[in-house]
Amino acid sequence: AVRLRVREALGAREPADAVRVQGWVRSVRSQKEVLFLHINDGSSLENLQVVADPSLEKRDLTFGSAVEVQGKLVKSPHKMQNMELQAETIHVVGPCDIWSFPLKMKERHPLEYVRQFPHLRCRNNTLGSLLRIRSEATAGIHSFFQDNGYVHIHTPIITSNDCEGAGELFQIEVSWAKESAEKTHFFNVPAFLTVSGQLHLEVMAGAFTHVFTFGPTFRAENSQSRRHLAEFYMVEAELSFTESLQDIMQVMEDLFKTVTSTVLSKCPRDVELFHKYIAPAQKSDITHKLFSSSCRISYSEAVEILKQAPQTFVFKPEWGCDLQTEHEKYLVKHCGEVPVFVVNYPYDLKPFYMRDNEDGPQHTVAAVDLLVPGVGELCGGSLREERLPFLESRLQRLGLTDAYQWYLDLRKFGSVPHGGFGMGFERYLQYILGVDNIKDVIPFPRFSHSCLL
Amino acid sequence: AVRLRVREALGAREPADAVRVQGWVRSVRSQKEVLFLHINDGSSLENLQVVADPSLEKRDLTFGSAVEVQGKLVKSPHKMQNMELQAETIHVVGPCDIWSFPLKMKERHPLEYVRQFPHLRCRNNTLGSLLRIRSEATAGIHSFFQDNGYVHIHTPIITSNDCEGAGELFQIEVSWAKESAEKTHFFNVPAFLTVSGQLHLEVMAGAFTHVFTFGPTFRAENSQSRRHLAEFYMVEAELSFTESLQDIMQVMEDLFKTVTSTVLSKCPRDVELFHKYIAPAQKSDITHKLFSSSCRISYSEAVEILKQAPQTFVFKPEWGCDLQTEHEKYLVKHCGEVPVFVVNYPYDLKPFYMRDNEDGPQHTVAAVDLLVPGVGELCGGSLREERLPFLESRLQRLGLTDAYQWYLDLRKFGSVPHGGFGMGFERYLQYILGVDNIKDVIPFPRFSHSCLL
Repeated sequence: AVRLRVREALGAREPADAVRVQGWVRSVRSQKEVLFLHINDGSSLENLQVVADPSLEKRDLTFGSAVEVQGKLVKSPHKMQNMELQAETIHVVGPCDIWSFPLKMKERHPLEYVRQFPHLRCRNNTLGSLLRIRSEATAGIHSFFQDNGYVHIHTPIITSNDCEGAGELFQIEVSWAKESAEKTHFFNVPAFLTVSGQLHLEVMAGAFTHVFTFGPTFRAENSQSRRHLAEFYMVEAELSFTESLQDIMQVMEDLFKTVTSTVLSKCPRDVELFHKYIAPAQKSDITHKLFSSSCRISYSEAVEILKQAPQTFVFKPEWGCDLQTEHEKYLVKHCGEVPVFVVNYPYDLKPFYMRDNEDGPQHTVAAVDLLVPGVGELCGGSLREERLPFLESRLQRLGLTDAYQWYLDLRKFGSVPHGGFGMGFERYLQYILGVDNIKDVIPFPRFSHSCLL
Repeated sequence: AVRLRVREALGAREPADAVRVQGWVRSVRSQKEVLFLHINDGSSLENLQVVADPSLEKRDLTFGSAVEVQGKLVKSPHKMQNMELQAETIHVVGPCDIWSFPLKMKERHPLEYVRQFPHLRCRNNTLGSLLRIRSEATAGIHSFFQDNGYVHIHTPIITSNDCEGAGELFQIEVSWAKESAEKTHFFNVPAFLTVSGQLHLEVMAGAFTHVFTFGPTFRAENSQSRRHLAEFYMVEAELSFTESLQDIMQVMEDLFKTVTSTVLSKCPRDVELFHKYIAPAQKSDITHKLFSSSCRISYSEAVEILKQAPQTFVFKPEWGCDLQTEHEKYLVKHCGEVPVFVVNYPYDLKPFYMRDNEDGPQHTVAAVDLLVPGVGELCGGSLREERLPFLESRLQRLGLTDAYQWYLDLRKFGSVPHGGFGMGFERYLQYILGVDNIKDVIPFPRFSHSCLL
């Protein structure tokens, strides 16, 4: 008998006499003359319907059990499905203790409920769809950059750069060391989990004009909010010979559009599930998320808009202060619930590597954030300071000259105007699917007070 | 003027009047009547030759400087190249301080030399080729699994599983905590850097019949050997409804062949560089690396072969003991310098999750290692123990029952025969390219006493 995956069986053009399908039982319905099963093997959201003689029923054949069914693949009389399997034999490969199994047949468990069972929640429809979408989006991101001539770089996870984002770093020690002197000894220097691959990508942007990375990044933020994780994924790209923020924004937009189109075409039913049941408030057509329109304002304009807003904010908007979540929300609403690029942020707000716009009296750097409805900041980028004297004097004022000698070196040997950005992968998934809590778009969420499995 | 990348310019079919090329100068040769430049932008190993009037020469135009050249793309009179660029203007975008620049024009620096400059070595030909190959291999791995219906899973980097590989774990603490009590407080439990995504993939293999992961893994091994890194990449796959090691070995082989073919077809010149200059002892045709033949022996047979070997080993071969590097080397040689699968290892040597073969008196588990010439162990895999009673009694004997309740759960709810393997990505690159030191096949090597940048 030919072994078919559920997706293949469902998509078959022709009936077939001897096929074999393996998977897990999603429903059992026993009638007088016929036994119906639904089998899922993770290859698609849709189940394969199995039609069997009631004599094939057995005690072990329950929801959640693993089965192997042999029989005939035939055209289904039902409109909702193309093919169904007429069982000749049903073998229960692994039974399921349904009384202690936390998932129940045909029940739409809330996301908060299944989140309690990180080792079992992938067997739930919603998480199954999420993981397929996440997988397709991952492949789409690699293809997008590959197709556009970017070189993929594995930027390091462990780094000795500790100057950025000071308070929120995870530090690494060897578990077998007893004394703290020994502990820092493994790498000879204190070592941390990366917060961004940008500086390492900049190294590579001195040899390859287009580079990207896509990997885990870390923040030791003491937050259990629906928007933060201690371990999350970031897509980052760096472009050499780039002199305008517009180029950077264009890549953000192209990346977003291409990956989202890929996801929509590869798993339309999985996406539909989210728009139907998880984010029903959302328009089920996500054309507006495909950047059919977007808005671009400067930071200074943003502050003016906020100052003139008819509502009161907890944090009073003021030039020179960070935009808070409430501000971001208002700006997105003000622009008509479309993606909003905010450009040119205050010099003193931003890290040392951002390019000085040499303007005034409101001194800015060439930075850009992309805000999207429901999620807030999705991407952040900037032109980098490629001019040695500017960078030198900034690092000196910050007392970082020694630590960043290698970074200054990049400006001594064939420095070029360059820039790049990062996109939070989980936030991207939250946005296109309308998922409220970031813990529901990653297979194994890690956050303050929680590291299950 | 149309902006072209070097690769595009070199591959152009037709001459073009107004083109613009940006990159870094790899050589300058000034003659009486003509100035020759070679420009590289990382899009290929080959440089674009620029031919210019000597009047365009300037002091800044040196090896290592960044330039933008405008001019005409014409057929080259030289056989070695298709096209060349007749410069009309040459703009030095960023000069290079050649006296302090550690790379020198037209010099083939040894890998050990450039390893000292992690922020600059990507500008060296060999590392440039390596990084392009690594990028193509990465894309090839994603495509292979994608094309075969595997779901990609981001298995977690931070994990609370500490029972495997005890002594070699990196532990994570928050940098802002002063007291060690506070330190473990972030996740409420001690947290470590992952040594393998396998157990998490097994979670997923209960919902998707084919899953894979490709990400960083960590070992706090106090070794500076040419074969070990503290941070390295691993490809791991898990297959459900799999009852034979042969299936696992087949996937290893298919993965190897497909990815290697991709690399060979996408960057033949880069691969050639390695076979010509880095591993000249190696046959430049790597057909034997494409598994035109391989060998399969059992662990017990391996021990017999070693016992009958005419040579003396530092570690005496004995049934029940781990195979040492010297043993692996001998086995590969004995089999004719082809890849060797060794199957069915002693029960007591292997971790709790491997499937009991229920044989005796030499009790084994269904494990497989793939040994390859020059590198040693490239892949390791096994069938997993899917039978609850076997797993329960083994965990109990090890005192791990409580820690692995969740893992036992996977055997209670629709358990299926399954298995998988991991392949060390850096070792794979070492093998196909003939690179002796693992530090030369990763962008930013981390190992005992070293964490640069």
